[in-house]
Amino acid sequence: MPVLVVKLGGTEGVQFDAIVHDVATLHRTQPEWQLVLVHGGSAEANALGEALDYPPRFVTSPSGFTSRYTDRRTLEIFLMAVRGKVNGLLVEACQQQGLNAIGLSGLDGRLLQAKRKGAIRVVENGKRKILRGDYTGKIQAVNAGLLQVLLAHDYLPVIAPLAVSEKGEALNVDADRAAAMVAAALGAETLLLLTAAPGLLERFPDESSLIRQLPRGRLEQAMAYAQGRMKKKVLAAQEALDQGVARVIIADGRVEHPVLRALQGEGTVIM
Amino acid sequence: MPVLVVKLGGTEGVQFDAIVHDVATLHRTQPEWQLVLVHGGSAEANALGEALDYPPRFVTSPSGFTSRYTDRRTLEIFLMAVRGKVNGLLVEACQQQGLNAIGLSGLDGRLLQAKRKGAIRVVENGKRKILRGDYTGKIQAVNAGLLQVLLAHDYLPVIAPLAVSEKGEALNVDADRAAAMVAAALGAETLLLLTAAPGLLERFPDESSLIRQLPRGRLEQAMAYAQGRMKKKVLAAQEALDQGVARVIIADGRVEHPVLRALQGEGTVIM
Repeated sequence: MPVLVVKLGGTEGVQFDAIVHDVATLHRTQPEWQLVLVHGGSAEANALGEALDYPPRFVTSPSGFTSRYTDRRTLEIFLMAVRGKVNGLLVEACQQQGLNAIGLSGLDGRLLQAKRKGAIRVVENGKRKILRGDYTGKIQAVNAGLLQVLLAHDYLPVIAPLAVSEKGEALNVDADRAAAMVAAALGAETLLLLTAAPGLLERFPDESSLIRQLPRGRLEQAMAYAQGRMKKKVLAAQEALDQGVARVIIADGRVEHPVLRALQGEGTVIM
Repeated sequence: MPVLVVKLGGTEGVQFDAIVHDVATLHRTQPEWQLVLVHGGSAEANALGEALDYPPRFVTSPSGFTSRYTDRRTLEIFLMAVRGKVNGLLVEACQQQGLNAIGLSGLDGRLLQAKRKGAIRVVENGKRKILRGDYTGKIQAVNAGLLQVLLAHDYLPVIAPLAVSEKGEALNVDADRAAAMVAAALGAETLLLLTAAPGLLERFPDESSLIRQLPRGRLEQAMAYAQGRMKKKVLAAQEALDQGVARVIIADGRVEHPVLRALQGEGTVIM
């Protein structure tokens, strides 16, 4: 049975209801497809952190990548905003459209097993230092069996980007790469990464420079075009294709019928 | 296979780790038992509401019962605090002790299906009025099939007290009564309600007046002794027994080995 994994953002600019509506249409018209949603939630976590006087702290690695430093309090804020609210409201939106969704984080049933980074190297004010107590991780294995059991019983898994460490700790992980790992573990036919842009642009932010087709051999080149968050999506695409996913589509989540249009070839199709 | 449902409080005075430790012991020593956890979280939701300048609003019904008025914003706070944090940290505590827990709320997989109240009658300043827009509900059905599938695959369900309405809306529900409905739906042998007291006291708060055995025929009488939150536990016990649960134990969640001691007969055993 063909598997489609759809990754959507948190709340920023991406149409929650339009996406869920398309997923409900697919579930009805293509009953043989197995559907899985993966979502982000950074914007919501940042907003909650600000409201609780515990704003996010972003750090830069020596190689220039920016990431969120996740101490224990930040992890709890992440649990509340992302596992509690974003995931809960997305499951609710699915239920309202007749999809029997089940919210899961990677912590639940050891769905996403990751290696905890613990200490991270950062550059602050031109100085290199090591920050300890970080609760982020890199996913190493997926409990595909749990997803298969739920899919076999016609539930729609809705996955929040947290993982579990070897010691059972909750970890914050990148949602695009989590979606890639899930797609790979299920042998997905398609991984759809929805974003607040029409796809990968050759000359960001010129939307007329959309790349419509990208052979996987040119992905490394594409890293040069990709700006900011798009770099993580290109990386996720690479990881998914390397592990056997047939195609990855990066497409606009802000339009009407974002899922159906992407499946009809809008956005950037990478094979 | 005998089913044991354990209800624990949110974070107030009840020993999270001690309970999880006992559950891990039972899982190891009584592998034929099927275990389910249900938790509360009001204290955590209240604290988050205060921190976000949206404190809880408690209302009193014409018959004298106090409850939380749950408007949409309060529901989101409840999702964050209870489904996100309390449930997430409890699942994490289980994972750290080798229990493969899966967090669920009643919204997920339509686990707990409830009738939404919508409008509630309250008395404020001596005047009766009707408050609309309330997101609370009374559970009418449990998707026992979902729990049975997870139990059959050796997962430990950890349930947060939310439900889903007929229209797919998330609802806040009473956790003790949710535990009773889950125990009934699974034909549980035992429902264990852990609390911050040694059990049901004949003369509250005199702990030496603990009632050790209570025949179910005397439950209605017991409503007279029960104070505050204990009234909901007695009601939950009644509902569970009426629907075929063999015994209900109300016991102290603050002690060492709270689960094992309760199963050995400490607390109030109602049959």
